Amino acid sequence: MTDISHKQTSISQHFPLLAGLTTYDRNDFSSDVFAGIITAILLVPQGIAYAILAGLPPQMGLYASILPPIAYALLGTSRTLSVGPVSIAAIMVASILATPAVSALGNPVQNSLILSAEVGIILSIMAMLRMGGLVNFISHPVLAGFTSGAALLIIASQLPQLAGLKPPSCGLNADCYRSYLQGANSYTLIIGSGCLALLVFFGKPLTIVLKHAGVNLALLTAISKCGPLLTVVLATTAVAYFNLDQQQVALVGQVPIGLPELSIGFIDAKAARLLLPNSAFIALIAYVESVAIAKVTANLRGQKIIPNKELIALGVANLVAAVSGGMPVAGGFSRTMVNFSAGARTQMAMIIAATLLFFAVIFFSPWFEQIPKAALAAIILMAIYRLVRVSHIINTWRYDRGDGIAELVTLLGVLILGIEEGITLGIILTIGSQLRKNSQPHIAVVGVAGNQAVQISKHSVETWHHLLLVRIEESITFANIHSIEDYLETELKKKPNTRHVVLICTSVNDIDATALEALGHFNRSLQQAGKSLNISEAKSKVLEKLQKTDFLKQMQPGQVFARTEDATKELG
Amino acid sequence: MTDISHKQTSISQHFPLLAGLTTYDRNDFSSDVFAGIITAILLVPQGIAYAILAGLPPQMGLYASILPPIAYALLGTSRTLSVGPVSIAAIMVASILATPAVSALGNPVQNSLILSAEVGIILSIMAMLRMGGLVNFISHPVLAGFTSGAALLIIASQLPQLAGLKPPSCGLNADCYRSYLQGANSYTLIIGSGCLALLVFFGKPLTIVLKHAGVNLALLTAISKCGPLLTVVLATTAVAYFNLDQQQVALVGQVPIGLPELSIGFIDAKAARLLLPNSAFIALIAYVESVAIAKVTANLRGQKIIPNKELIALGVANLVAAVSGGMPVAGGFSRTMVNFSAGARTQMAMIIAATLLFFAVIFFSPWFEQIPKAALAAIILMAIYRLVRVSHIINTWRYDRGDGIAELVTLLGVLILGIEEGITLGIILTIGSQLRKNSQPHIAVVGVAGNQAVQISKHSVETWHHLLLVRIEESITFANIHSIEDYLETELKKKPNTRHVVLICTSVNDIDATALEALGHFNRSLQQAGKSLNISEAKSKVLEKLQKTDFLKQMQPGQVFARTEDATKELG
Repeated sequence: MTDISHKQTSISQHFPLLAGLTTYDRNDFSSDVFAGIITAILLVPQGIAYAILAGLPPQMGLYASILPPIAYALLGTSRTLSVGPVSIAAIMVASILATPAVSALGNPVQNSLILSAEVGIILSIMAMLRMGGLVNFISHPVLAGFTSGAALLIIASQLPQLAGLKPPSCGLNADCYRSYLQGANSYTLIIGSGCLALLVFFGKPLTIVLKHAGVNLALLTAISKCGPLLTVVLATTAVAYFNLDQQQVALVGQVPIGLPELSIGFIDAKAARLLLPNSAFIALIAYVESVAIAKVTANLRGQKIIPNKELIALGVANLVAAVSGGMPVAGGFSRTMVNFSAGARTQMAMIIAATLLFFAVIFFSPWFEQIPKAALAAIILMAIYRLVRVSHIINTWRYDRGDGIAELVTLLGVLILGIEEGITLGIILTIGSQLRKNSQPHIAVVGVAGNQAVQISKHSVETWHHLLLVRIEESITFANIHSIEDYLETELKKKPNTRHVVLICTSVNDIDATALEALGHFNRSLQQAGKSLNISEAKSKVLEKLQKTDFLKQMQPGQVFARTEDATKELG
Repeated sequence: MTDISHKQTSISQHFPLLAGLTTYDRNDFSSDVFAGIITAILLVPQGIAYAILAGLPPQMGLYASILPPIAYALLGTSRTLSVGPVSIAAIMVASILATPAVSALGNPVQNSLILSAEVGIILSIMAMLRMGGLVNFISHPVLAGFTSGAALLIIASQLPQLAGLKPPSCGLNADCYRSYLQGANSYTLIIGSGCLALLVFFGKPLTIVLKHAGVNLALLTAISKCGPLLTVVLATTAVAYFNLDQQQVALVGQVPIGLPELSIGFIDAKAARLLLPNSAFIALIAYVESVAIAKVTANLRGQKIIPNKELIALGVANLVAAVSGGMPVAGGFSRTMVNFSAGARTQMAMIIAATLLFFAVIFFSPWFEQIPKAALAAIILMAIYRLVRVSHIINTWRYDRGDGIAELVTLLGVLILGIEEGITLGIILTIGSQLRKNSQPHIAVVGVAGNQAVQISKHSVETWHHLLLVRIEESITFANIHSIEDYLETELKKKPNTRHVVLICTSVNDIDATALEALGHFNRSLQQAGKSLNISEAKSKVLEKLQKTDFLKQMQPGQVFARTEDATKELG
C-alpha cells in the first residue's frame, strides 16, 4: 500500500493534471467541454493568422495548436493557461526570418522548426538548472514596454493587409505614400473593414444588447466568442459567392489535409548555430509571458504556479511543436482569457480544444484555403490592440519615475532598434539600476546610549574623539565595498584624531573576496597612519571565513570583539 | 583676493597636480628626478616590446610613452600611477587586430589609432555621465582571473620568440611539435635564454648580493631597475659584434627618428564602427586596472583616488595617444611599481620620465633598430609572469567558493573562448549571483512581546490564529517580490485560519512598479478567499507613492496602520 501511494504521489508530481483528476466530477467535465469548444472556435482562425503573421504557411499555426497544448496540459501547473501560437512569438519569428543572414539560409519552414526545437531545448535546460527564478530578472515595466512595442509592430504589419497592401517603406516622403495607397485593393478593403466592424460589434456592443435581452451568461459568452469564426465564415462565403479570388483578393492558399508525420528531419547544424541566440530570446519571452499570464488566472482562483515546472511544460510543448511541424508556442493572453472566462476548470478543456482542432484539420482543411487574409488581419488587430497600453506607461511613470523610464525606453527600443535589442536594453537598464542601488551601502556612525549602540544622528549618545564606531547594515560585497571605503575615509577626515576604527558587523552575513582584499588595503593604510581596525559582533560564519585567511593576523593590534561595549570599554 | 583664490581652487580642481605643487620642495624634486630617470630606463625597452606584442611598429609604443603620461600627470589624481603602453591592453589590441573582420580592413597602424581614439572618447563620455562607479561591477576575482588568463596568453605568445619561432599551431600532434621545434634558430635561442638569465639575476639574486656588499638603498634600486636596459644593450651589442642579423636573428627593424606630427588623419567611419565594441572592452579594462593599481599605491601613502577624475585623465591620455601616433594606454602595474619604489613623490616624476623618452626617440632611434626581438620577449616574460597568480585562485577558492568559481571561469574563459568573451562571462557570473542574492528576501513572521514586534522563532511571543504579521526588512522590488509572494503563500498554507495579513514595512524604503502590481494581484486573491491585506509602519514616502495609485482603495477593508500594535489591537 505504502509503495503504491508513494508511486502515485511521484507520478502526480510530474503530471500535475493527474493530481487534480482525483476530485474531478461531472460538473467540472461539462464546464471543460464548453470552454474547450469555445476555445477551439477561436483557435482555428488565430492559429492560421499567427502563422501568416510569422511569415509561415498556415498549417504551422494549426499544428502548433494540437499536440503542444496537450503536452502542456499534461505537464504544466496552470489549469487554464492556453498554450499555442501567440502573437508576440509570431512577430519575433517574422523578424528573425527576415534578417539577411537567416533568409540567406532559405527554407523558412525549416528555420522555424529549428527555432521551436531550440526554444524547447533551452527551456528544458533552464528547468534542469532550476532557473525558474529567471523570471525575476525581467521587471514588469520592461515586460509591459516590450509587449506594447511588439503589439505596435504587429499593428503596423497588419493594418496594410486590411487593404491588400504590404507594409510601406516610404519614410517621410508624402508622394511615396500617395502612390503606395493607390495600390490598395478595394475588394480587400471592403472585406477587411467589414470584418473589423463585425469584430468590434461582437465585443462590448453585442454583450450589452444580449444582456438587455436577458440572455444567460454561458450563452452570452459562447455567442460573443464566436465573433472570429463567424467573421471568417462570412468573409470566406463572400469571397466564394462573388468570385473575389479573381479580383486579386489575397487568400490563405493551400493547406495540406491531416497532420504531418512526426519528424526531426529539419535538423541542420549551420542553421541551428545561427539561430541559437534568437531562440534564446524567444524562449525567455515565451517563458516570462506564459508565467505572467498563468499567475494572473491562478491568483484569481487561489491556485499556485510552480515556475520550474512551467519551464519543463513549455519546453516539452515546444519540442513537440518542432517534431509535429508547428511554430514556436507559448501561453497566450487572449486565448487564455477566452478559456478562463468560458469557464474552464482544468487542463481537460485544453485537451478537448486540441482534439477538436485535430478533427478540424482532418475534415475542414480545404475550407481554410479560401479564407481571405484581410479577415485574419482583422482578427489579429482585434486580439492585439489591447496589448498597447498607453495608460499603463503613464501610470507607471507617475508611480515610479525610474520604472516609467525603463518602460518607455524598452518600448522605443523595440520600435526603433528591434525586438531583441529593445528587450535587451530594458533588461540592462533595470539590472543596472538595481546594481546601482546595491552599491549604496546601508551604514551608520554610532555612539553608545546605555548599553546599546545607536545611530548618532538620531539619539543623544556618548561618543569618543579617538574612536570611530561604524555599523554596517548588510553584507559587504564587491558591489558596495567601494562606497563603504569612501564613507569610512570621509568619516576619518571629519575626525582626524581617530585612533581606532570599529566595524560593527551585526547585520553582515557575508564578506566576499573583493571586500576582503579592499578591507586588507584599508587596514594597511590605517596602520601606516598609526590607527587600528577592529571588528565587533561579527557572526560566527563570517569569523570562520576570515580565519581561513591571514586578515585577522594582519589586523593586529586591531581586535575582534564579541560585543561593541567590550570595544568601547577597552578602546574608549 | 577672494576671486583669485577662488580661481586657483577651481584650476587646481581640474589639475590635481597643481594642488600638490604649493608645498613642493627641493627634496621632492630630487626624489622625482631620480624616479623619473629610473622609470625612463625601463620604459624604452618596455614601450618597444609592448608595441611588438600588439603587432604594431615599435615606435607606437614609444610615442605612447611620451605625451599620454604627461596628459595623465596633469589631470590624474594618482601621484605615482605610470600611464603608457601596458601588456594587457597590448594583447587585447593584438587579438583584435588578428580577427578576420579587422585584418580585412588592412592597415593595423590606422586601426590601432582608431582604438586609442575610441578608448579616449568612451572614457570621456563615461566621465561626463559620472560612471566612475562602473568599477563596482567588476569584482576582484573576475579581474584577477582575467589578468592571469591574459598573462598566460602573453607568455604563450612570447616564449616561442625566445627561440625565434612563431607560436605553434599543432594541437595535440607530437610529430608536428617535433618538426616545429626544428625551426628554432640557435643564435636567437642563445640570446633569448641569455637575456632571460640576466634578467632573473637582476631580480632577487643581485639585490641579495648588493645588500651583503652594503650598497645603500637608492643605489640598489637604481642598479636593479637597470636590468632591462643592460639586457637590451648587451644583446644589441652581441648582434652587432657577431653580425647575427646575417643568421636570421629577428631584430626590431626600422624606427623613424623624432616624433610624428599630430594628426587625426586616421579617422575612418567604417573601421570606427567595426572597432567600437572592442574599444569599449579596452576602455573598461584600462579604467578598472588603472584605478585598481592607483588605489594600491595611494592607500600605501594615505592619498585618495577620485574615480571620475581618473576617467577624464585616462580618456584624455588615450586621445593624446591617438593624435600623437601612439597605441592605447593605461596605468601599468610594473611601471607604476618601479616609479613608486624608485621614490616618486608627485606626477613630476612621470613628466621627467616622458621628457627623457622624448630625447631618446630624437637621438637614439637608429640604435633601437638593432635590438633583437628575443631580448624584448625576455623582458616581457619577466614583467608578466608575476601576473599569473595561481595561489590567488587557490586562496579565493578557499575563502569563498562562489568567488573562486568566478575567478577560475574567467581565467578559463579568457584562455578558451577569448579575452573579451572571458571577461564578459566573468561579469555575467558575478552580476547573476548578486541578483540571485537580491532575490532572497529578508523577511520574518513576527508576534508581539510587550509593545514590540519580535521574530517568532527567536522569542516567546503572543500570536493570533487569524492574524499573520510579517515584517519585510528591505525595499520591495522586482528582484524579490516573487520570493516574498512565495513566502506569504507558504505561511498562509501553514495558517489556513488567517483572516488578516499585516505587512510591517518599517524597513521598506521603496515599492517599485513590479512589486506594486504583484501586491495588487496578491490582495485580490486574498479578498477572493475572504481575507484582508493590511500595512503597518510604512514610511511616509512609500505611502505617498501608494496614494498616487488606487492600490490603497482596492485594499479596503484592509487598512493602513501607523503602528503594528494598533493593527494587533484592532484585528487581533
